[in-house]
Amino acid sequence: WHDRREVNGRVAVPQGPRLLESAGNLDNLRAAAGAAEGTFRGDFPFMDSDVYKWLEAAAWQLGSSATPGNEDLAAEVRRITGLVAAAQQPDGYLNTWFQVAKGGRRYEDLRWGHELYCAGHLIQAAVAHRRTTGEKELLKVAVRFADHLDTVFGRDKPIDGFDGHPEVETALVELYRETGERRYLSLAGYFVDRHGHGLLGGEAYCQDRVPLREQETVEGHAVRQLYLLAAAADLATETGDGELLTACERLWAAMVATKTHITGGLGAHHDEEDFGDPYELPNERAYCETCAAIGSVQFSWRMALLTGKARYSDLIERTLFNGLLAGISLDGERWLYVNPLQVRDGHTDTGGDQSARRTRWFRCACCPPNVMRLLASLEHYVASTDSTGLQLHQYATGRYTAEINGAPLVVSAHTDYPWSGTIRITVEECPADTPWTLSLRIPQWCTDHRLSVNGGTPAATVSDDGWLRLERVWAPEDRVTLDLVLTPRLVEADPRVDAVRGCVAIERGPLVYCLEGVDHPGGGLDDVVIDTGRPLTEVHRPGLLGGVVTVTATGRRRTLPAAGWWPYRGATDPGRPASLPDTGLNLTAVPYYSWANRQDGSMRVWLPTR
Amino acid sequence: WHDRREVNGRVAVPQGPRLLESAGNLDNLRAAAGAAEGTFRGDFPFMDSDVYKWLEAAAWQLGSSATPGNEDLAAEVRRITGLVAAAQQPDGYLNTWFQVAKGGRRYEDLRWGHELYCAGHLIQAAVAHRRTTGEKELLKVAVRFADHLDTVFGRDKPIDGFDGHPEVETALVELYRETGERRYLSLAGYFVDRHGHGLLGGEAYCQDRVPLREQETVEGHAVRQLYLLAAAADLATETGDGELLTACERLWAAMVATKTHITGGLGAHHDEEDFGDPYELPNERAYCETCAAIGSVQFSWRMALLTGKARYSDLIERTLFNGLLAGISLDGERWLYVNPLQVRDGHTDTGGDQSARRTRWFRCACCPPNVMRLLASLEHYVASTDSTGLQLHQYATGRYTAEINGAPLVVSAHTDYPWSGTIRITVEECPADTPWTLSLRIPQWCTDHRLSVNGGTPAATVSDDGWLRLERVWAPEDRVTLDLVLTPRLVEADPRVDAVRGCVAIERGPLVYCLEGVDHPGGGLDDVVIDTGRPLTEVHRPGLLGGVVTVTATGRRRTLPAAGWWPYRGATDPGRPASLPDTGLNLTAVPYYSWANRQDGSMRVWLPTR
Repeated sequence: WHDRREVNGRVAVPQGPRLLESAGNLDNLRAAAGAAEGTFRGDFPFMDSDVYKWLEAAAWQLGSSATPGNEDLAAEVRRITGLVAAAQQPDGYLNTWFQVAKGGRRYEDLRWGHELYCAGHLIQAAVAHRRTTGEKELLKVAVRFADHLDTVFGRDKPIDGFDGHPEVETALVELYRETGERRYLSLAGYFVDRHGHGLLGGEAYCQDRVPLREQETVEGHAVRQLYLLAAAADLATETGDGELLTACERLWAAMVATKTHITGGLGAHHDEEDFGDPYELPNERAYCETCAAIGSVQFSWRMALLTGKARYSDLIERTLFNGLLAGISLDGERWLYVNPLQVRDGHTDTGGDQSARRTRWFRCACCPPNVMRLLASLEHYVASTDSTGLQLHQYATGRYTAEINGAPLVVSAHTDYPWSGTIRITVEECPADTPWTLSLRIPQWCTDHRLSVNGGTPAATVSDDGWLRLERVWAPEDRVTLDLVLTPRLVEADPRVDAVRGCVAIERGPLVYCLEGVDHPGGGLDDVVIDTGRPLTEVHRPGLLGGVVTVTATGRRRTLPAAGWWPYRGATDPGRPASLPDTGLNLTAVPYYSWANRQDGSMRVWLPTR
Repeated sequence: WHDRREVNGRVAVPQGPRLLESAGNLDNLRAAAGAAEGTFRGDFPFMDSDVYKWLEAAAWQLGSSATPGNEDLAAEVRRITGLVAAAQQPDGYLNTWFQVAKGGRRYEDLRWGHELYCAGHLIQAAVAHRRTTGEKELLKVAVRFADHLDTVFGRDKPIDGFDGHPEVETALVELYRETGERRYLSLAGYFVDRHGHGLLGGEAYCQDRVPLREQETVEGHAVRQLYLLAAAADLATETGDGELLTACERLWAAMVATKTHITGGLGAHHDEEDFGDPYELPNERAYCETCAAIGSVQFSWRMALLTGKARYSDLIERTLFNGLLAGISLDGERWLYVNPLQVRDGHTDTGGDQSARRTRWFRCACCPPNVMRLLASLEHYVASTDSTGLQLHQYATGRYTAEINGAPLVVSAHTDYPWSGTIRITVEECPADTPWTLSLRIPQWCTDHRLSVNGGTPAATVSDDGWLRLERVWAPEDRVTLDLVLTPRLVEADPRVDAVRGCVAIERGPLVYCLEGVDHPGGGLDDVVIDTGRPLTEVHRPGLLGGVVTVTATGRRRTLPAAGWWPYRGATDPGRPASLPDTGLNLTAVPYYSWANRQDGSMRVWLPTR
């Protein structure tokens, strides 16, 4: 993760103000403040949220161990905070679309207006900024807006409703955590529970078809669903609401078992950015919006903390390394809004935000600043602590601190994961004589691992909930080495996933692999078959794509049926086993996250076996 | 076809005026004429085209052998023609959207305005009405509009441009054929050739990315592409333009080999109603707009007449019996705009025009009147004649007339096709002593047929271009019996069609079959596997779905993998042959055209073989 976060901090985040300036977002703030010409720039009512997401990313970046003391960035944050504060209206309301383009007519279009959605991102940014820098300017703006919302929305207040795009709900819980003000928590709970009663017309798109507590599976707009679920998990955490917890567990399980691509990507339909039906997981038209991957991480992290089960962090790992990371180019300057699992030979692309080609910025630029804030805050998803000790959810080099009975507990980890499966953990500081538990997640994909503690091999088994728990009285300098065996493997899908019938995917450790046309000259990828009887070989390629391990397999080019004008014919013997000639074709698979960083061309994750 | 056309004539067409009244289309004409309140009704600028398509359908219906002397219908046509004529402006312009809703600002939005598209449908209706009834009122309106267009559009005229939705091009060729006025043919040629030069922004959606003469494969909005191709084929026919003919042949071949569903349905993307990439032929998200099936029939019929090759009529047959006919319910009252090849268990439908559930009428009601006019004019796609004799392209009971050297030639056919493969043809009238050729299309799907002429078996082989040609001196009462063997068969797709890998479809004669959930109680369809080693059985079911032949197969319910939270797992042995237990599950397949006429539920055309 070091390289990816370094690029995020060095390239992606610093370029934010320039892009927000050229896309018009900052001009909108100036116009709302009356300091500039009053014409709204941009095509969407949620242009403000890009500013707030960038502010949040910058705030995390300022607090990140990766970039201490970035004074230029801090100054930019203060400058833009000033623009935000100036645009806020006296009663706390702030939304440049409605102030500039809509003549101040607020809350007329809750379904599409995104006013509370933008408020949510403002609040998230403010809380992040306060936490990482201690500065209060942005938090003051956020509190004034939240207080305003609390006077407007409620069953016995002027408006009984909610925003068509959830986001303010998680933000209000965070603001409650930051300020201790329970009104914010109550307002978040009100918003979550008003979904599903037809107040916005009853559409699944707006999460308004059925109350979340009664919902059987995830549905509608994927990002909206995920942000709402994250809020429900927050509320269950803060209030102990068991019904809400059960609903979250049920919906997470249904989503993962039937509507999740192997990359962790979510959302099957371009149309309405919708989840689609169970097991409807297309490849070339996978939507898998980058923002949905982020929403999935946020939801799963809350569930991980709430339930203690490792599977939630399993999905986070898979999503981070695949579905999310593919959304940003290796150089940090180009983006994918949608993340297909296949690009065909002869693909034609109509361009636009939903292009399968990387793009410098989007008309609807929700994803780039969302990736920035996720990568900038990534360290917060790696470890957790509770009264029993420390849990390592993800494996990344770093220093993790906690407390046991008031005594400091510091553990460091060193690893070249995911290229190597070896994680070296050193206890740096811990209470003497007090037993505590170091919990290590054994990833769901991992069928073989080795463990040593101070050179010995302890008897430790992986629990049903996915954790390897090492309880003992630890001492500084104690060393734990975990070896996760990363042998490349072939993976198949549940047979109800029609789109990948008769196909396998290549994985190594947490990484999903894909073939790219650029590595297979002399023909496209649509006629390639993998020979599943031949071994997979890993090759360390430090000079390729920023340094990756490729996986080499053997396949062939299919003998295509005799040319005819009609592509369907009498079934020969569909049950016949694959017969592969000896003339092997070398297949080179690269990590999915690294695709589309060389030349445009074809790509596929799932490979036919015959 | 008799039953389907009877329903069209008895139910579908007569209900048109009522639906057009309630949807507001007729009020728009009144408003444009100044005879009613001036508010435009409906959401689209092409509301007028629904009126014209209905008028065309009614005109064909009036001329159809199926409903002679329908005085009520003729009166309705005259009434609505009066509304149309009254709405026309003095200079010939007519479009209620621009007259009523846009303050008369014409041709400001050629990309989306549909003014010429509506003009095209008006012209088509007028030509049909003139041909079937001899009446000229509507034709006068059409000619005035065409003359107006000819003063406005051209390289050296006020506007150098074309309509984003082709349609006026074929219409102008028809008007040329009807009136002999070459200006209309020239204008059609101008419009076709101005596509692809960026005049409308260069989008594939509007057929403006590349000139058709240089295009390598079909692209963009499927209906727009097909209407443009039909016009190109018309122009090649009328002008002998070899380059245009070559382009039409090339594009038809690319479309059929790589972008056509087994039903003949066209268009892979909901988004932009786009063709998609080669071999991108999804099942549950197949778009296959009913109008695209109609456009395909129109394009292919022109190519059949132009080239004489039977494959074009092969595709017409497949499209008519499957992709098109599924678009109208058996009772003629409910419609499908999109025609998916799969509806999953647990499918949730957001409704709207693109629903996988039949709908009474659409917000964008392009398809229903388009089906009406196709079915009403179906008899014109059955037979053709040239100097050598008569060609039967489709098999339907009827009487077909032609001339040989000025002498009348009458042939009748009797058949229960597609339920029976026996077609009995009788020569009723023909010139004595002059040899001529009766040509019978041997369908592409047919691997076995028998032929007798007057009880004997002539030595006749099927030519490379798909025809069985019987040349002789015929005499009245000569009898030809063609038996096309209809044994049900399993079909597989080109292996590059990823969506149906490891699956087969059931066909019988020209019909594609599907499974419906309603016939398979006790579980859904998503876990069903067909046993390809067991025989298929046909069952005549006169009481089912208006009388169909069902096909019975044997299968099983899949043993699903052990439940787990993650739906992907290590590949077991993907090359293993299917092992099916003896406990067979009876699978009942019904013709695809008849699906969704009982209760809502799951459906699938392609059946996994393991």
